[in-house]
Amino acid sequence: MLLHTIFLIAIAAEAMTAALAAGRRKMDWFGVCMLACVTALGGGTMRDILLGHYPLSWVADPNLLLICCGAALATIAGARFMHKLKWPFLLLDAIGLVVFSIIGCNVALEMGQPFVVVIVSGMITGIVGGILRDVLCNDVPLVFSSELYATVAIVAGLLYTGGLALGLPRELVIVVTLALGFAFRVAAIVFKWEMPKFVYDKELR
Amino acid sequence: MLLHTIFLIAIAAEAMTAALAAGRRKMDWFGVCMLACVTALGGGTMRDILLGHYPLSWVADPNLLLICCGAALATIAGARFMHKLKWPFLLLDAIGLVVFSIIGCNVALEMGQPFVVVIVSGMITGIVGGILRDVLCNDVPLVFSSELYATVAIVAGLLYTGGLALGLPRELVIVVTLALGFAFRVAAIVFKWEMPKFVYDKELR
Amino acid sequence: MLLHTIFLIAIAAEAMTAALAAGRRKMDWFGVCMLACVTALGGGTMRDILLGHYPLSWVADPNLLLICCGAALATIAGARFMHKLKWPFLLLDAIGLVVFSIIGCNVALEMGQPFVVVIVSGMITGIVGGILRDVLCNDVPLVFSSELYATVAIVAGLLYTGGLALGLPRELVIVVTLALGFAFRVAAIVFKWEMPKFVYDKELR
Repeated sequence: MLLHTIFLIAIAAEAMTAALAAGRRKMDWFGVCMLACVTALGGGTMRDILLGHYPLSWVADPNLLLICCGAALATIAGARFMHKLKWPFLLLDAIGLVVFSIIGCNVALEMGQPFVVVIVSGMITGIVGGILRDVLCNDVPLVFSSELYATVAIVAGLLYTGGLALGLPRELVIVVTLALGFAFRVAAIVFKWEMPKFVYDKELR
Repeated sequence: MLLHTIFLIAIAAEAMTAALAAGRRKMDWFGVCMLACVTALGGGTMRDILLGHYPLSWVADPNLLLICCGAALATIAGARFMHKLKWPFLLLDAIGLVVFSIIGCNVALEMGQPFVVVIVSGMITGIVGGILRDVLCNDVPLVFSSELYATVAIVAGLLYTGGLALGLPRELVIVVTLALGFAFRVAAIVFKWEMPKFVYDKELR
Repeated sequence: MLLHTIFLIAIAAEAMTAALAAGRRKMDWFGVCMLACVTALGGGTMRDILLGHYPLSWVADPNLLLICCGAALATIAGARFMHKLKWPFLLLDAIGLVVFSIIGCNVALEMGQPFVVVIVSGMITGIVGGILRDVLCNDVPLVFSSELYATVAIVAGLLYTGGLALGLPRELVIVVTLALGFAFRVAAIVFKWEMPKFVYDKELR
């Protein structure tokens, strides 16, 4: 219940940041809505396609599409105030990343998938929306080179599945995962924690 | 029957415009055929994957692949005449957009999907092929910023499902949807009807 | 058995070349692993999604993900030696292309797909991983314009299915396909065999 509420808020927040990205590319209102839907729902969609888990969440509940479009249009309407909202967006995105990861793990767990697939399922749910957004905006995906993001999704997945495996009550595991995952992501932003980069500029010969 | 004939013509037309896009990127003959197939069949393929509607149309009827490759190779052979065919292509693309939208709505209706999903299914069928073409050509998808296109697909879907819901004969609904959708798209091109753009260039802070 | 061994080696080789591509984009270690997985496993994943062939290979056997990540991290560790390995990589990639194609044909054959779909299934398995790599690196896919590559996958598929259709023993057909496909690809690199390019720079009007 709590999870689903945060999920909806996170969807709206992802849609709003996607709308701003669309605005930087001077997309029209339709493009803004489309990019918002792809970004907010793309991770779960990719997970479900890869796992063969039908129907997709937004097919079963098309209100998710309306939430994304509503959030996108609200972003256009309130564009002049958005530049002050960097931190609210970052915080909502951080909590959204953890919620997406938990939900992704859950889907794979319920399908009886092996451990590695469960963690990957959580990670895909958390990060693929942003990757699709960047591909459609013609950028190299940010998640491949910026502050810890996918790592947060993986750690959240490990905390969640680990807690469940220990037999702890599900509600407790969710709250702890949310708190620690959120703190981890915020710390990564504040302290600019990054994965080491792999820089390779030689030609093979 | 009429629908299927127009569908095949539209597939060929989409494949030909994709072949020209491939030629602008100096692709080889294989790349031209591949881009033609992805563009002409990508919308229906994406729809079927998202809805879990198997087998895909070109798997059930591989002749569709041959039509696309044939149209692409014909485009190469007749390249010197193509620059005079802007309007035939635009008109065929317009009718194709409406046909794709009707077919996409049909697939979702037959699966018993809710109303919003039916309209989205029509829209995806109409526009995703072009999006994939633009991503593979390393462009920001045109459909996010040019004359009304996705809107035409949505309006066509609304006309079609609305007509069916009113209990009108299916053939009549199809013909009316084709006529009005086509006229709408052509008017959008002629009068340069565009969605308002969302232009956002501030950094968040 | 032989096929599976070569398959695993080919997966690792694809992952390593993808890791080098990631290094050219200065991705972090996570991005390197991710790009390695997408490149090495993306072709088979796309094939399975298009054919509705579940579970995906890496969901059924998550060790494939670990092999890709291991190969990617080994590439980072041994980056200073990689520039001398152009030919080993090209040769492994050539054998991998043929193996992927054979495996892709097999999957479609076992599903009872029609002939064209079998060949396309082999080709997709061989080339889509590289296409996804190029899209994520924000390049126009190399396979659309460089030395014969998809053609090799198609020819290998034709040899393999042709041999089976003639009733020849499966092991023999595999070995002959591997040998001829490999030779064809290597010859294409050495002699710079390319498909004719389609160059089109006129505007439609």
